[in-house]
Amino acid sequence: MTVDTFQRARRPEQKQQREDAILSAARELALRDGVRNVSLADIAARVGIHKSALLRYFETREQIFLELTAEAWRDWVDALHARLDAAAAGSAGLVADVFARSFSDRPLLCDLIAHTPLNLERNVSEAVRRYKQVSLGVVNEAAELVRRVQPELTLTECTEYVATMASLAGSLWQIANPVPALAELYASDPALAQACVDLTPRLQRTAEVLLAGLPASRGPRPGP
Amino acid sequence: MTVDTFQRARRPEQKQQREDAILSAARELALRDGVRNVSLADIAARVGIHKSALLRYFETREQIFLELTAEAWRDWVDALHARLDAAAAGSAGLVADVFARSFSDRPLLCDLIAHTPLNLERNVSEAVRRYKQVSLGVVNEAAELVRRVQPELTLTECTEYVATMASLAGSLWQIANPVPALAELYASDPALAQACVDLTPRLQRTAEVLLAGLPASRGPRPGP
Repeated sequence: MTVDTFQRARRPEQKQQREDAILSAARELALRDGVRNVSLADIAARVGIHKSALLRYFETREQIFLELTAEAWRDWVDALHARLDAAAAGSAGLVADVFARSFSDRPLLCDLIAHTPLNLERNVSEAVRRYKQVSLGVVNEAAELVRRVQPELTLTECTEYVATMASLAGSLWQIANPVPALAELYASDPALAQACVDLTPRLQRTAEVLLAGLPASRGPRPGP
Repeated sequence: MTVDTFQRARRPEQKQQREDAILSAARELALRDGVRNVSLADIAARVGIHKSALLRYFETREQIFLELTAEAWRDWVDALHARLDAAAAGSAGLVADVFARSFSDRPLLCDLIAHTPLNLERNVSEAVRRYKQVSLGVVNEAAELVRRVQPELTLTECTEYVATMASLAGSLWQIANPVPALAELYASDPALAQACVDLTPRLQRTAEVLLAGLPASRGPRPGP
């Protein structure tokens, strides 16, 4: 089907270029068609190489998408820094707004979050270990950022907040972005449309509830 | 591969028996192998019929699993009634405990919740419309139950609580139940095991946070 226009990469910078081209193709296809619908063959075709050539750079489809997920998490935490580093302590509304938008502005990250435990972590390999190290590091970094703006929360509570928001962003994004046929069903029947979700306000609202509930639900214990 | 031991069902009760046998087979396989790994051919083989015979009763794999999801939601709301109908008003701890266990006692429901928007609602048909009617009815029924025990919450807040808990149960169950190879990775590296989740206490804790946060995060507005 496709012609292998890639020369085999001999130098490290050539290898890096090939890998970047493959990741870019996977990113574009996943954003256009959804992670679920992108195969290794699709990615190879988009780059313009044979599948066998692609396999010189990535062992599996899962490895490619785990790499994109790690990259999306790093970009996400950079966006949190950009909006929270200079924030004054105390504004739960700001933290909720920053989190809601940090996810709803990143459809590929949200789509990937739902696919990670369900599909991407199944072919376990060194790639999963590397991915886990990145994602855990990002969650901890985000928790420390939240703690700086919400110093009345403990670091454990901030980690709970970040992990819960990430899980919800992944599952709610799938509900908020129905396939076209399901979107038509919602349009045809307002009673069913109640099952759909408007992502940004829903995430913002849940973030506010979590931030208010974390200190309010504390049992008797030593202070933070 | 298999012998069609089914006579074609001619009477309505025979048709019902066939459908029940197919649903039972799908339920058993999904509990044993995970929803993700069960194909239409697997279900037919388990019942002992040809795939073509199975297709007389269900159009698609998705239709079978949507039927199981609707059934699991009805069973779930029955369990809520059993523990909350006689509960005195006011106990957020009880509501949190009942919700956490209602999900962690139902692994198939949790697995199906994650697959519903991602995979099962894609072949839209009359089956999806019926499924949505059941699941929306169950969410509203559960919200009314919560409101009876937590009368200081509005019905909208109770619906938010139920929908958020359901989304989280679906995504956290997948994280709490890693494939064997990933479980081995966690066992080999305690730093990575932080990424895993203990489902029941995590759901209980989040339920408590949400119930405390819903009234605490209210802006100025008329009372419930």
